Amino acid sequence: MTVAQEKGVAAQVPGTREPAAALTVQGRDRPGIVAALTGVLSRHGANVVALDQYSDDPVGGAFFQRTVFSAPDLPGVLPAIEADLTAVLSDGFELDFTLRDLAVRKRVAIFASKSDHCLLDLLWRHRRGELPVSVAMVVSNHVDTAQEVRGFGIPFFHVPSAGPDKSAAEAEHLRLLRGNVDFVVLARYMQILSGEFIAGVGVPIINIHHSFLPAFVGAGPYAKAKERGVKLVGATAHYVTEDLDEGPIIEQDVVRVSHADSAAELQRRGADVERAVLSRAVAWHAEDRVFRQGNHTVVFT
Amino acid sequence: MTVAQEKGVAAQVPGTREPAAALTVQGRDRPGIVAALTGVLSRHGANVVALDQYSDDPVGGAFFQRTVFSAPDLPGVLPAIEADLTAVLSDGFELDFTLRDLAVRKRVAIFASKSDHCLLDLLWRHRRGELPVSVAMVVSNHVDTAQEVRGFGIPFFHVPSAGPDKSAAEAEHLRLLRGNVDFVVLARYMQILSGEFIAGVGVPIINIHHSFLPAFVGAGPYAKAKERGVKLVGATAHYVTEDLDEGPIIEQDVVRVSHADSAAELQRRGADVERAVLSRAVAWHAEDRVFRQGNHTVVFT
Amino acid sequence: MTVAQEKGVAAQVPGTREPAAALTVQGRDRPGIVAALTGVLSRHGANVVALDQYSDDPVGGAFFQRTVFSAPDLPGVLPAIEADLTAVLSDGFELDFTLRDLAVRKRVAIFASKSDHCLLDLLWRHRRGELPVSVAMVVSNHVDTAQEVRGFGIPFFHVPSAGPDKSAAEAEHLRLLRGNVDFVVLARYMQILSGEFIAGVGVPIINIHHSFLPAFVGAGPYAKAKERGVKLVGATAHYVTEDLDEGPIIEQDVVRVSHADSAAELQRRGADVERAVLSRAVAWHAEDRVFRQGNHTVVFT
Amino acid sequence: MTVAQEKGVAAQVPGTREPAAALTVQGRDRPGIVAALTGVLSRHGANVVALDQYSDDPVGGAFFQRTVFSAPDLPGVLPAIEADLTAVLSDGFELDFTLRDLAVRKRVAIFASKSDHCLLDLLWRHRRGELPVSVAMVVSNHVDTAQEVRGFGIPFFHVPSAGPDKSAAEAEHLRLLRGNVDFVVLARYMQILSGEFIAGVGVPIINIHHSFLPAFVGAGPYAKAKERGVKLVGATAHYVTEDLDEGPIIEQDVVRVSHADSAAELQRRGADVERAVLSRAVAWHAEDRVFRQGNHTVVFT
Repeated sequence: MTVAQEKGVAAQVPGTREPAAALTVQGRDRPGIVAALTGVLSRHGANVVALDQYSDDPVGGAFFQRTVFSAPDLPGVLPAIEADLTAVLSDGFELDFTLRDLAVRKRVAIFASKSDHCLLDLLWRHRRGELPVSVAMVVSNHVDTAQEVRGFGIPFFHVPSAGPDKSAAEAEHLRLLRGNVDFVVLARYMQILSGEFIAGVGVPIINIHHSFLPAFVGAGPYAKAKERGVKLVGATAHYVTEDLDEGPIIEQDVVRVSHADSAAELQRRGADVERAVLSRAVAWHAEDRVFRQGNHTVVFT
Repeated sequence: MTVAQEKGVAAQVPGTREPAAALTVQGRDRPGIVAALTGVLSRHGANVVALDQYSDDPVGGAFFQRTVFSAPDLPGVLPAIEADLTAVLSDGFELDFTLRDLAVRKRVAIFASKSDHCLLDLLWRHRRGELPVSVAMVVSNHVDTAQEVRGFGIPFFHVPSAGPDKSAAEAEHLRLLRGNVDFVVLARYMQILSGEFIAGVGVPIINIHHSFLPAFVGAGPYAKAKERGVKLVGATAHYVTEDLDEGPIIEQDVVRVSHADSAAELQRRGADVERAVLSRAVAWHAEDRVFRQGNHTVVFT
Repeated sequence: MTVAQEKGVAAQVPGTREPAAALTVQGRDRPGIVAALTGVLSRHGANVVALDQYSDDPVGGAFFQRTVFSAPDLPGVLPAIEADLTAVLSDGFELDFTLRDLAVRKRVAIFASKSDHCLLDLLWRHRRGELPVSVAMVVSNHVDTAQEVRGFGIPFFHVPSAGPDKSAAEAEHLRLLRGNVDFVVLARYMQILSGEFIAGVGVPIINIHHSFLPAFVGAGPYAKAKERGVKLVGATAHYVTEDLDEGPIIEQDVVRVSHADSAAELQRRGADVERAVLSRAVAWHAEDRVFRQGNHTVVFT
Repeated sequence: MTVAQEKGVAAQVPGTREPAAALTVQGRDRPGIVAALTGVLSRHGANVVALDQYSDDPVGGAFFQRTVFSAPDLPGVLPAIEADLTAVLSDGFELDFTLRDLAVRKRVAIFASKSDHCLLDLLWRHRRGELPVSVAMVVSNHVDTAQEVRGFGIPFFHVPSAGPDKSAAEAEHLRLLRGNVDFVVLARYMQILSGEFIAGVGVPIINIHHSFLPAFVGAGPYAKAKERGVKLVGATAHYVTEDLDEGPIIEQDVVRVSHADSAAELQRRGADVERAVLSRAVAWHAEDRVFRQGNHTVVFT
């Protein structure tokens, strides 16, 4: 449970001037949940602006709900709503919830290597106001993109990778990240993260894989795609787990290719899909639209 | 307001054996609607399986909600839920609702002319169990498809069009339709319906237009597309209004074409899009996923 | 090398009344091939209507060319063109060619099991004039589709599968096919073909696999897709080789799915992609647009 | 007829180290053209790497051919090939041709206003080596993008628009462009060009229109799309003619939207399509893949 309301600027309902908050709820399904939750909101004068709900089985399944609501004096009323939700849900429900003033943007660190297409697309969309996040920093094992990143007004930290022993670099990463970010995005970061790092960082990590998973797991997917003669290449954004390329998939897309495309051209065409897929996944995560359930996701788009 | 529960067979939640009903609500937004509605469902022991809600403006906007719920003895409890909803919503809400046992399929009449691709695709999907409708009849101004339609076990009625005066044919149409169908689908029916017929039939009419509206309104869209040299051709499913090709759009899609495609080939490629778009629109309408609001639709897919 | 000109009716250039023939050439690239080939056509008064050429490497690569041409008295002139091509290409070129009057349609046998969506889509497109093939027969290990197939005026042969020993059934298949067909289409035929059969039938076999290969090889791809939580499902048309699901890919496509789709719904959505992908692959093969090169294809669309 | 071979660096076949040239031919179709053209190439030892040919009617139609070929000492042999082609084609053919060393990139001026998404995408693709052009300059009626453009090492010229009389600004444009560029790209340049300018500049002009033409011609297409309730928004790249939004279409694409997207969100989603469509059109034009024929294009992709 989180109330994210440190900032004074309230978030706004898309397309309007109205502040808004997001409530997400996940857990064991049973009758009455939606009524209990929306009853709390109603008692505090909140108006539901958008609500998505899904149960993966009507009997004994898992329950997922995302609710966006507005209210007069939203930052003032959120603590009372949170207390009320806690009280109501302690009465026999097996549910977790998050409550967040949408004015308070999630803080993200972007990790990159030499390839800049995913990194620059995220920074450019952020500058245009398309990504509702606060970009806290960019971290890279190369310095190639430093100047361009800083041109966007974003801090850039160079943490070289030093061979097979990643412990020093990862310790440095943790020093930079802890307390400073709400999630991490690997924007074509070409280093494998250790299980210790994934556990230690304590926030979700989103990766973009340059293939339509589960096809072409591992390294060199475009070369493998060329070798297999596929007619589409794709990209997959997923949460990072200790099992490489096996984490819950958030978003995927593909683009048509032909026999005349070399592996290098597959890579170029794929780059467009990579940046599109990653930016959608980041935006959805930032807006609390993605729920993890086992190795799957529920995404309310 | 409708309770559709004449049949004894209860509808089932997709993918499960559980009976289910759909509640749709539309009207003026204000705080407390979702809580009031789900409170009613909760009091009757119903479990919300899926809920989509949308307001087009958080202050004084229009409210749309579709709720699918299951309950023990669903057909038995629906009348009580309906009475309760009526009572609750009479208390200052400006909302209309429909309540429908999903076991009771909407009855549809399909109108066609000589082109069979949209008609056969609907019948074939219906036979496969993909379209949750009851096909009451096929009506055509040509006899070409009679044998094939009857092969699907569907009644076929031939009502010839007799020149510019449509009144006799439309009177025959009304005799066939009234009381027998919940909506009408024009599956490439090449006759223009009069305003009198549209008003008289009293049920929604869905048309498939063979272009990406509003491009190429009127007759001969593929010839116009060839003439203009477009690189995509499309199709549009929309509700029929008196203003030709101007009704609320339910669904659209396109397919890529090239300079090498003749107008006849554009038509062939477009035919695939037409049948796909129409079948999606019919299924969504049949499942109460489409709300009309002015000349727009809200579609919860 | 083949001259297919048995029929008196000459094929026509798409969109016109002009007879046409297709010349395909494949082999080792070297300078002068296109000039030599088109020089032969020019000497016989043929007019090139469409020409696609591709070399996979400008130095020592493989050469692929498809040429459609028209000529006065096309059936009469084809033997002379063939003799000329043979003479010219014997002079140091390492190339194979086929020459075919497009009026003479390739004969196909369609194999199916219980699922009818791919089978019926092929038959329906054939009846509409969209598939330039002659459907010689449908062969199935089930009788479910017999009546419908015969309703299209197509012979239906029931060859039951009798357990693990396929030799009797495959011998019956070979008796039906030999000399009667130019290629075979497996339209969701759920039996694995033996290497003996594939070698013995002596004509290309096209299969539709219900996944985006190489993801989800083997049985039950939709269940595997649901388990992995992918956001797209697809289909792959490929030539059949002894290595199951490993043959050269002709065409692929995908459709978007969501967490709310059950495995059964993935299958339904995938069925639409399967039939679209298979019909494209069959049409392209029928029009000599597909070249096999190792485990790849070159497709001039 | 042009031989563009001023530069010493020879162009290379995609994916290889081999220099290459492109020959395009357009005019009245008749038998023997392909043989005559490839015969010339063959006599000079050139190897055809890729050839696309199309006739819009086999009898008396228009002929289009694009040929990419390699040759030893390509810059040295091009003048002789050109002379030979001129001689051969003067013999009764009604054809125009261009011959271009692909090492010599076309020079482009990009016009922009305040919106940066199309402009930056072109510059970013150019830096990555995806756009085979030489960006000679960026011209804008606003200074907003000056610093960023110059950061790419590209000259930026500010030419303010001064009310309804465009003659001074257009005169300045002509001074900048004449002799310096081979084509102009309007990357969301929000000024209408006069017929005098279009005629005076003497090179092709490519525009990106923010709708799926011919739907929503004129200003404010996203507001119109929202008003009409369409389910897809798109973009169109076309050559500029005096008739606003009526020029030959080079490329189009669309993206799915929903009722929940405001006009501002349609614009954001559309921006992604705009930059993708424009970059494809620019690359195709730069590689001589686009032929104008009346108000249409033939595009060999």
